[in-house]
Amino acid sequence: MTIDNGFLQRLGLDNPVIQAPMAGGGDTPALVAAVANAGGLGSIGAAYLSPEVIAKTAAETRALTDRPFAINLFAPLPLPERPDPGAALDRVRPYYAELGLEPPAIPEPAADDFAEKLAACLASDAAVFSFTFGVLPADAIAAIKGRGVTLLGTATTPEEAKILEAAGVDAIIAQGSEAGGHRGSFTGGRDTEFERNLVGTMALVPQIADAVSLPVIASGGIMDGRGIAAALTLGASAVQMGTAFLTCAEAGIPEAYKEAILAARASDTRLTRAFSGRPARGIVNRFMTETEDRIEDGTGKAAILPFPYQNALTRPLRAAAGKAGRPEFLSLWAGQGLELARRQTAAELVARLVTETDDAITRLTK
Amino acid sequence: MTIDNGFLQRLGLDNPVIQAPMAGGGDTPALVAAVANAGGLGSIGAAYLSPEVIAKTAAETRALTDRPFAINLFAPLPLPERPDPGAALDRVRPYYAELGLEPPAIPEPAADDFAEKLAACLASDAAVFSFTFGVLPADAIAAIKGRGVTLLGTATTPEEAKILEAAGVDAIIAQGSEAGGHRGSFTGGRDTEFERNLVGTMALVPQIADAVSLPVIASGGIMDGRGIAAALTLGASAVQMGTAFLTCAEAGIPEAYKEAILAARASDTRLTRAFSGRPARGIVNRFMTETEDRIEDGTGKAAILPFPYQNALTRPLRAAAGKAGRPEFLSLWAGQGLELARRQTAAELVARLVTETDDAITRLTK
Repeated sequence: MTIDNGFLQRLGLDNPVIQAPMAGGGDTPALVAAVANAGGLGSIGAAYLSPEVIAKTAAETRALTDRPFAINLFAPLPLPERPDPGAALDRVRPYYAELGLEPPAIPEPAADDFAEKLAACLASDAAVFSFTFGVLPADAIAAIKGRGVTLLGTATTPEEAKILEAAGVDAIIAQGSEAGGHRGSFTGGRDTEFERNLVGTMALVPQIADAVSLPVIASGGIMDGRGIAAALTLGASAVQMGTAFLTCAEAGIPEAYKEAILAARASDTRLTRAFSGRPARGIVNRFMTETEDRIEDGTGKAAILPFPYQNALTRPLRAAAGKAGRPEFLSLWAGQGLELARRQTAAELVARLVTETDDAITRLTK
Repeated sequence: MTIDNGFLQRLGLDNPVIQAPMAGGGDTPALVAAVANAGGLGSIGAAYLSPEVIAKTAAETRALTDRPFAINLFAPLPLPERPDPGAALDRVRPYYAELGLEPPAIPEPAADDFAEKLAACLASDAAVFSFTFGVLPADAIAAIKGRGVTLLGTATTPEEAKILEAAGVDAIIAQGSEAGGHRGSFTGGRDTEFERNLVGTMALVPQIADAVSLPVIASGGIMDGRGIAAALTLGASAVQMGTAFLTCAEAGIPEAYKEAILAARASDTRLTRAFSGRPARGIVNRFMTETEDRIEDGTGKAAILPFPYQNALTRPLRAAAGKAGRPEFLSLWAGQGLELARRQTAAELVARLVTETDDAITRLTK
């Protein structure tokens, strides 16, 4: 690939491909290291990991590669008051019963262990730290940058990009509406998160590139070299891809999840709060449909708890469903480009991306 | 511009820019002809015009250019039964009162005059016929193609693109979720139209390019040469742009509408059924918010009539609001790239697009 820019040089990358952090098990050390060894940037999604597991995962990754890798946390969120789980608990009880389980107690609000997680990340030898869901506290930003770690913030609108630039990040991840998984939006209310901040990648990247003076990393709907070349054309310095890596051999998700991605069509995803309490894009399945339908009936407003309580309420269900091969209870996070997903190794994917990007550029200029 | 492909050659275009049909007055003969004279393809949105006005508009356009232009109709839709307008009428009455008007009677279902409109289009000397909202009847397709007119259908998913290809269209307009105005979706139910079929341009174009053997025209979020170069990289043969042309001097929309576009941010739009009964993307304003909020309250399910009745109910309000400079009652259709909109003539815009596209390609390959 002939792509060369200051951002890639700074990170020591051979090509402009970042494997997205996928908190939830997809981004195994094997996957992150394979991407790194292929000249891209792998990311460890550490938001749901304890400080101890962060240290262990990073060490396992470092043992598999001597190239740079990234680590990702959620910005610390104000924890809502512990809700009455009554209606939400009743909703999920039958699904747990189908798997022979009782639903979990809703945990008490955890002491915020962001500081401990951040310390583990800083001790991890990660060259890049990325975050979503807001802005890091100033002392965290100072600690990260003081170590020479490159800091990437996630924006879903030009306005959010400007807030992140003012806070001191080194580059902006522009998350278009096509992206799978959780929306990174942190401005506006719930309605805004769902709809007004759902800006497509084609519109988002050039507007963010014009709004800030930082390198932009395009994400959302990019699945092959055509998408990479298009993102670079729009003004991005690199791309971040999640769904394309989920069907790689090294991705640590249940086989039923991989099969669901490979069988799905572009119109098979939508946003839902059903699994975690925050809007995220995934393949429509039974749990999503039944939970959301009840809300639309006007009977279930309290049936989805706020994040992170709903996430805690459904986690054991999702874990058991993965083991039992029951995709109807899995959060099948995936982006809208999923018809382009393939079975392959991460090394094969990155090599293909390099070739395809060159081909796309050549076609454009022939 | 160095872009050259069979699709552009077939249509006799110098550059890959199609000005989107904007039924509602934006696409004046002056705008369509200016785009044509600049080497692009202008489009007359004829869906809301009578056969007589179609003939007149096309003749006025032809008098201003000898280059090819396009004309657009909606695919004939099954007309829903005339609804009880009671609640919807009550909702809009106060807005009409603010402008000193009474709301209109809801019209009786009109005799379907698609055949007469089509005949006027075929007699119009348009070289291209495009349509949205479905598939044309087989006899209409045969009549159009029998005259040597190039036929463009609009798809919002790869599945819809395949349906259109099987019906015999010559090229597919891929309408990404970023696009302003009405969604062209014609598969799935209401929920599907709003959410599952809202696929971003970055994800939609390569998947449609892979799904069909026809030329693809990318639309949605494309506002400048970066977007054009990106669309071509994704596999498109041309782009269709609406919002960028709305702020051109020749666009026949109220000044207040142009000012709203120029002042808006990327996160200021969302989909609404409030104006027409069908989902369309526009800048959030008072009429949209108040009408939609009432629905979310669970009190107003009947307050938005099905298309085309809601459209008829709000049309005089929008017309009066345009004259009175009251954007809070206008349907401010616009796409998510609107921060990139500029005041200029259509000729200036097309010339800028040509230069910017070349520049974007050059940057990519330097």
